[in-house]
Amino acid sequence: MTTTSDGTGDLAVGMVGYAFMGAAHSQAWRSAPRFFDLPIRPRMRALAGRDAGRVAAAADRLGWESTETSWKALVARDDIDLVDVCTPGDTHAEIAIAALEAGKHVLCEKPLANTVEEAEAMVRAAEAAAAHGVRSMVGFTYRRVPAIALARQLVSEGRLGTLHHVRAQYLQDWIVDPEAPMSWRLDKSQAGSGALGDIGAHIIDLAQFITGDSIRRVSGRLRTFVEERPLPSEHSGLSGTAGTGTGTVTVDDAATFLAEFDGGAMGVFEATRFANGRKNAIRVEINGSAGSLAFDFEDMNILHFFDGTEDAGTAGFRRILVTEAQHPYVEAWWPPGHLIGYEHGFTHQVVDLVNDIAAGNDPAPSFADGLRVQRVLAAVETSSDTNAWQDIPR
Amino acid sequence: MTTTSDGTGDLAVGMVGYAFMGAAHSQAWRSAPRFFDLPIRPRMRALAGRDAGRVAAAADRLGWESTETSWKALVARDDIDLVDVCTPGDTHAEIAIAALEAGKHVLCEKPLANTVEEAEAMVRAAEAAAAHGVRSMVGFTYRRVPAIALARQLVSEGRLGTLHHVRAQYLQDWIVDPEAPMSWRLDKSQAGSGALGDIGAHIIDLAQFITGDSIRRVSGRLRTFVEERPLPSEHSGLSGTAGTGTGTVTVDDAATFLAEFDGGAMGVFEATRFANGRKNAIRVEINGSAGSLAFDFEDMNILHFFDGTEDAGTAGFRRILVTEAQHPYVEAWWPPGHLIGYEHGFTHQVVDLVNDIAAGNDPAPSFADGLRVQRVLAAVETSSDTNAWQDIPR
Amino acid sequence: MTTTSDGTGDLAVGMVGYAFMGAAHSQAWRSAPRFFDLPIRPRMRALAGRDAGRVAAAADRLGWESTETSWKALVARDDIDLVDVCTPGDTHAEIAIAALEAGKHVLCEKPLANTVEEAEAMVRAAEAAAAHGVRSMVGFTYRRVPAIALARQLVSEGRLGTLHHVRAQYLQDWIVDPEAPMSWRLDKSQAGSGALGDIGAHIIDLAQFITGDSIRRVSGRLRTFVEERPLPSEHSGLSGTAGTGTGTVTVDDAATFLAEFDGGAMGVFEATRFANGRKNAIRVEINGSAGSLAFDFEDMNILHFFDGTEDAGTAGFRRILVTEAQHPYVEAWWPPGHLIGYEHGFTHQVVDLVNDIAAGNDPAPSFADGLRVQRVLAAVETSSDTNAWQDIPR
Amino acid sequence: MTTTSDGTGDLAVGMVGYAFMGAAHSQAWRSAPRFFDLPIRPRMRALAGRDAGRVAAAADRLGWESTETSWKALVARDDIDLVDVCTPGDTHAEIAIAALEAGKHVLCEKPLANTVEEAEAMVRAAEAAAAHGVRSMVGFTYRRVPAIALARQLVSEGRLGTLHHVRAQYLQDWIVDPEAPMSWRLDKSQAGSGALGDIGAHIIDLAQFITGDSIRRVSGRLRTFVEERPLPSEHSGLSGTAGTGTGTVTVDDAATFLAEFDGGAMGVFEATRFANGRKNAIRVEINGSAGSLAFDFEDMNILHFFDGTEDAGTAGFRRILVTEAQHPYVEAWWPPGHLIGYEHGFTHQVVDLVNDIAAGNDPAPSFADGLRVQRVLAAVETSSDTNAWQDIPR
Repeated sequence: MTTTSDGTGDLAVGMVGYAFMGAAHSQAWRSAPRFFDLPIRPRMRALAGRDAGRVAAAADRLGWESTETSWKALVARDDIDLVDVCTPGDTHAEIAIAALEAGKHVLCEKPLANTVEEAEAMVRAAEAAAAHGVRSMVGFTYRRVPAIALARQLVSEGRLGTLHHVRAQYLQDWIVDPEAPMSWRLDKSQAGSGALGDIGAHIIDLAQFITGDSIRRVSGRLRTFVEERPLPSEHSGLSGTAGTGTGTVTVDDAATFLAEFDGGAMGVFEATRFANGRKNAIRVEINGSAGSLAFDFEDMNILHFFDGTEDAGTAGFRRILVTEAQHPYVEAWWPPGHLIGYEHGFTHQVVDLVNDIAAGNDPAPSFADGLRVQRVLAAVETSSDTNAWQDIPR
Repeated sequence: MTTTSDGTGDLAVGMVGYAFMGAAHSQAWRSAPRFFDLPIRPRMRALAGRDAGRVAAAADRLGWESTETSWKALVARDDIDLVDVCTPGDTHAEIAIAALEAGKHVLCEKPLANTVEEAEAMVRAAEAAAAHGVRSMVGFTYRRVPAIALARQLVSEGRLGTLHHVRAQYLQDWIVDPEAPMSWRLDKSQAGSGALGDIGAHIIDLAQFITGDSIRRVSGRLRTFVEERPLPSEHSGLSGTAGTGTGTVTVDDAATFLAEFDGGAMGVFEATRFANGRKNAIRVEINGSAGSLAFDFEDMNILHFFDGTEDAGTAGFRRILVTEAQHPYVEAWWPPGHLIGYEHGFTHQVVDLVNDIAAGNDPAPSFADGLRVQRVLAAVETSSDTNAWQDIPR
Repeated sequence: MTTTSDGTGDLAVGMVGYAFMGAAHSQAWRSAPRFFDLPIRPRMRALAGRDAGRVAAAADRLGWESTETSWKALVARDDIDLVDVCTPGDTHAEIAIAALEAGKHVLCEKPLANTVEEAEAMVRAAEAAAAHGVRSMVGFTYRRVPAIALARQLVSEGRLGTLHHVRAQYLQDWIVDPEAPMSWRLDKSQAGSGALGDIGAHIIDLAQFITGDSIRRVSGRLRTFVEERPLPSEHSGLSGTAGTGTGTVTVDDAATFLAEFDGGAMGVFEATRFANGRKNAIRVEINGSAGSLAFDFEDMNILHFFDGTEDAGTAGFRRILVTEAQHPYVEAWWPPGHLIGYEHGFTHQVVDLVNDIAAGNDPAPSFADGLRVQRVLAAVETSSDTNAWQDIPR
Repeated sequence: MTTTSDGTGDLAVGMVGYAFMGAAHSQAWRSAPRFFDLPIRPRMRALAGRDAGRVAAAADRLGWESTETSWKALVARDDIDLVDVCTPGDTHAEIAIAALEAGKHVLCEKPLANTVEEAEAMVRAAEAAAAHGVRSMVGFTYRRVPAIALARQLVSEGRLGTLHHVRAQYLQDWIVDPEAPMSWRLDKSQAGSGALGDIGAHIIDLAQFITGDSIRRVSGRLRTFVEERPLPSEHSGLSGTAGTGTGTVTVDDAATFLAEFDGGAMGVFEATRFANGRKNAIRVEINGSAGSLAFDFEDMNILHFFDGTEDAGTAGFRRILVTEAQHPYVEAWWPPGHLIGYEHGFTHQVVDLVNDIAAGNDPAPSFADGLRVQRVLAAVETSSDTNAWQDIPR
């Protein structure tokens, strides 16, 4: 096998970034080989970050063998097979393209990029690299929640028939308090987008993944409810405390849009950070001529399925506890009824990626899938500005 | 047809008592012919109560044509075909037996009586009357909730296979406040029993009805959490306010018991007025070799059904919204998804009773069914006193 | 009081139409005085319908004293105080205006009319009549579901703070089968509109009622999934069977729209008859700066309320069982935990209307409220045609 | 600190057994230091099992540094600080006592032992060892589910007032099929007990933990529904396939019992492997004078809390999503709304144990807590045999 750098059969991973996503990815790289039979074993070789002290502490905490203080140094190392990009969106394109050009497989967090142009360049780089057996994947991990994977399976088996409706919401509330301080996620220059790009991207990808269909037109509305926020007292994360002065929020707090799918389904989407009491409610409901599905990430081990072909006297939404050995990814974990959590989707992502690399397959979601999402995001923004429906380019 | 007194084809009803149950029964007598095709039409001819002024006001409010100030006068009237007994349990036997001996059909509220002896006498009277075409029914109306009727249907069709477990709870909280005042329901001389007889009787009947099986042994425990309560400020109902002095609670606040069914199922029962936050939670869950059922009256239009014969990948408890035309009693009401409420069970009770009277059938639940419940209640009390399992006599 | 025709203190009601809505209204007129203290007692004096035999049978079944074979005859009667209009939308304007001009109070089913023009004429007639003490109300009965009334109360008390999001869905599935036959509800000339006007009207009214705010702009999309359907075998209702030939569906099967409220909230609305497995799912969720609410009519006795001012450690959506004496309309019914059903909203509507008539108040929702809904419906249709946001005229 | 063997500040762990529990414990030892700040770092030094090949493969898979083919060899090693006992219950006493006598800290899976006598001996050994700073803990991990820890916290803060009712169920269905083959869990000589000891032990511990109270009397009933089962085709786990011949089930399939708590609460318990459709439904509901709690492990990140001191108009069970930083154990994991799963309880167990070892505290649940559960189990068995209530000895 030529997929690994050192002939050991190990897959040497280098990761850039070590915040929230870095912690989740680290646990995934560590756990995957403990529960799944992998053809090659991931090795957590190096972690890159700008601050030498911080990155060393993070590497120790998260379990990486070595550190680099620049992503370029990481990409330049011969003993790295795969680069895992966990930085904010404005750096994705540069890092990922460099890594691909250096012959490294790339796992890139979502959204793929902050602009369609960057995403297009990334797709070109990914396609060029794929010609040489170098693989790339964008990190829409929710596809790997077993209940979501089961939803996709039921749709692809035709259990829903012709799809009529897709209603998808991603509801959070972490900045509903107007005194919650500024953060990089509220700054367009770094984050690229607000609720739309951060969490709306997920439900767009999920909707297209589960339906196997593409959005072709949108009519959208973005909104910033709180335009000035206190600056944080220091560099702090989501739970930062307010400091002196205020900053201007340059991204959307919430986004809503109608959609038409190629296959004829009507879509209604909503992404917000202002849904008081909803913490991470990723809700997808799909209605078809033969049945329906409903999912809520706040109850992520459950899929609700209505089989419209059943006798009306006993038909009803089934609460499927997606913890059976028959369900996607589940057999590697625990007996029925023993739940898994948020980070398990990242572990499944590693499993699928490693298997694809070993088998020489192009993984999904590809950078092209990421671009497809990016184009929907851009069209929603444009539509909100122009007050008109906007087509998604192919 | 000889079932009616006046040749009009009407069924002349006389009701005794006009409190909570009287209001529910009145609405049932009034509504049944408006939604269901009945072979004979009920007529709300007379209402009996001890206080002339109160009974007149109640008759006006509830829609009865005339009044009597004693139940004996009501039973003596020639123009009454059926006596509906809505009084406290200590008067059931005397009224019902007199009415049956006078050739009146009888609908008697539950529990059938306050003692097994009374209930036995009532069964004898009912059997003697049945020989002359006079019908009797005990008012376990929850059997007529469509979701419960559907549950019975699924069990009788074998959809659950061999039954292993019955867990039934009737949870209320209306006297959890130790300052809630005394009422007749807390006085053994009138009520006969507390939570056990008042609400435990319902879940015993439901368990036996849905399973089609009988409880043969019990081990129980009764408990009075608050033994002294303030006397009510005046004659007041459930929401009475406290007055001067205290009275002694002579009935149980809560009852729990284990049970064995003839068919081998294990039962666990609990009836309480001290389940803070539970208002009228009648919960029945049944597990069998082929499937399971779960019901909660606080969501009374829903039946949860697990079909154990389904593929494990898509099996799950179905939330059946029991509002389809195929479901028991539903076609007479509204389109799918339009719920019915508490009092509809009383209307269905009237419908079934009137149909049975017209057809010359003995209605269910019979007084014998009521006696069967009474014997379980008595065995639970004895078991609590003796700390030993107690058999239910046949 | 001059509100009644005959000096008896009774309010003589004449109803036009006796299908689904006629049955619900009849039960309401009959039940209201049995549970509520009304200052004047409704009397079910006359029922009007075109077919003499059918209307006579309906009057007997539903409990009306007399019949007329034209609504004009009904309106002309001196012994009628109030006309209750339960016919399809294309006849509302003519009947209601005539009745108002004849000095009759009017209760008119929703939607108020099939066009904005008709609705405007009705508002003018209602205003002219009101000057003479003649009252009018449009039948958005869901406002009278106790959980909805409680939702309105919580918003008006400021428990939700500034409103950010309104998401409302009315989901049904009764024509998801493409072989379900044609009916008048699928014919634009009679029904005026499809899912939008029939059920979308309800969620528009509910959203404006609960928020106390008005929609000012919309971007919508209508859709007819099945354009040709079999003709019914004979005149039949919702559950009709297919006959020979096909007819063209001229109304929408589903409607989706984005909305902006005057107060700044973002709205997302969806009304469909194609949501497989959803029978009458009227869902309203509202997020504000201080809290949130969620409601689903398929569990109509429940209101979910998140109080964002609570400590995060014990905050959570409360499942309020809206059956307490403190809750709107509930005290007249049953003890806590004893549910009410669909038709109780109609009873509450009668109660409020009769109380307003007696007190000389203009009832709500007024014809002007109905017009406001009509204008939103029209704007959604226009928006769907023009692919552009559409303002709602004042 | 002298708690570690090698002066490195590491805590060297040796584990015995590597099946289901071994996998869960391994993930916990590996993950704990990655998410929590631990004063000493666990090191996965050695794994013991009887079959050299199997144990080597397991050590490689699960991440242990070395192996032993006997637990005695493991206990004898100088470089082991803590022995983690993950074997069937019949070996717990021998291993744990030997380890404690060798000066090793011990973490022992539940149930503590197969008999009260063994458990008593273990408690004596634990107490003797504690005098020398050697710690012991029994693995009732469900105490470490954040929602359960929150439940305990609310009770201890008095939010429930005086406790009236405890109803606890542990419902599974993995042997409801009579053709499911024999396994060691169905053999009394190895497992000691069936549903009662395996899963009933958990709800007994949870009930005593959350209430902070002890069960003093029980009346129970055990039952074996299927007495003969096919032998497995080979050594296989829970999902084994049937082979030739049958074996006799010598443990209970289900257990039910009533309980009285020292503090006066009434308890109802049920543990079964025959609840069709329930996979791992650990349900605990507690009602007190001031409020109530409800939990179901099939929705393990949720705690339902009813605050009975709230105004009745807005009171309701709160669905607390136990994923806030304020909640026990949660801050180390993910942002609000990002769920955790089954194995996280094991990680929390490691965290608490390591912290207690470092701080020199005796951990909870102690072996004495385990004995307390064992005595309840024994009393339930005796009660089932004698048909009489049975006191729990102190």
